[in-house]
Amino acid sequence: MITQQQREEAVRGAHEYLRRAGIALTADEVEKIEVADFGLSQLETTGLELITYVNTERCCAKELVLFPGQTCPEHLHPPVNGEPGKEETFRCRWGEVYLYVEGERAAEPQRRPPAGSEDHYTVFHEVVLKPGEQFTIWPEVKHWFQAGDEGAVVSEFSTRSRDEFDIFTDPRIQRATLVE
Amino acid sequence: MITQQQREEAVRGAHEYLRRAGIALTADEVEKIEVADFGLSQLETTGLELITYVNTERCCAKELVLFPGQTCPEHLHPPVNGEPGKEETFRCRWGEVYLYVEGERAAEPQRRPPAGSEDHYTVFHEVVLKPGEQFTIWPEVKHWFQAGDEGAVVSEFSTRSRDEFDIFTDPRIQRATLVE
Repeated sequence: MITQQQREEAVRGAHEYLRRAGIALTADEVEKIEVADFGLSQLETTGLELITYVNTERCCAKELVLFPGQTCPEHLHPPVNGEPGKEETFRCRWGEVYLYVEGERAAEPQRRPPAGSEDHYTVFHEVVLKPGEQFTIWPEVKHWFQAGDEGAVVSEFSTRSRDEFDIFTDPRIQRATLVE
Repeated sequence: MITQQQREEAVRGAHEYLRRAGIALTADEVEKIEVADFGLSQLETTGLELITYVNTERCCAKELVLFPGQTCPEHLHPPVNGEPGKEETFRCRWGEVYLYVEGERAAEPQRRPPAGSEDHYTVFHEVVLKPGEQFTIWPEVKHWFQAGDEGAVVSEFSTRSRDEFDIFTDPRIQRATLVE
């Protein structure tokens, strides 16, 4: 749960990061910036701000904002109604993002899961994305990501997005954010 | 057909427009900027510069650059091998783009098809996109677009891209560009 004030501050902050990244939004889009706390009520450490540009039955594009050190928690995209799970490409536009996916564990991962939630992070193959760099996450592959110290703006190009079907490693997580 | 010098100049120019739009490319991507003259050998008026970020069986994302007044000629995306045609969303990132699609003809279209090619332009429903504005083109819908006087940078979010199947209104057009 987040307060209305937290939501408003996060929307303003996300808009400011997008502006720094040179990304223009319409006034309507600014109103629709989504703030996700994943039900943990620790927005500063576990959270994500996003704007969905388009999401049809076939494809989707979003802009993701992470504040400095903010983490989008570990999850995967399962098949839905017989269709393969969501496939997504993350392209860093501004700042730096540390992406962790299934695969060989980094000897010394540069970033850590949010304190107190370590048990719910299981994949540590590290991919660091700076502006202009990208990585594709195939369906059903577990992943989580965290912004560097300046925050990050990341474009997501994907198949249809149905966040409500995402499977999170942390059983405490609820994808829908409640605003107090 | 374009000369090697024309190609190099167009790549440099496209890279500069992307830079102005605040869009970072890796060095590898700069090398892969595509220059399309659609076989008409009139790149300045009919042409497109693009970089494909990702193009899988399911989805695709590109950045399109149009120099001032440059036109991407009228075409549609047909079904391929039983799959619906390509669906694409154009989002203006920088400059201004005049998009013409099937639908009610604008009383006074603000832009004209390239001189000498007027017979091969048949749709004139006008959609003007400035930074942050976007429009979705459904499969099999004829469309063409032209940059405003400062040029344009446009993100394209779409289903799988198979340019070789595009159907152009102008029978002289060849999608593959020959470099002299």
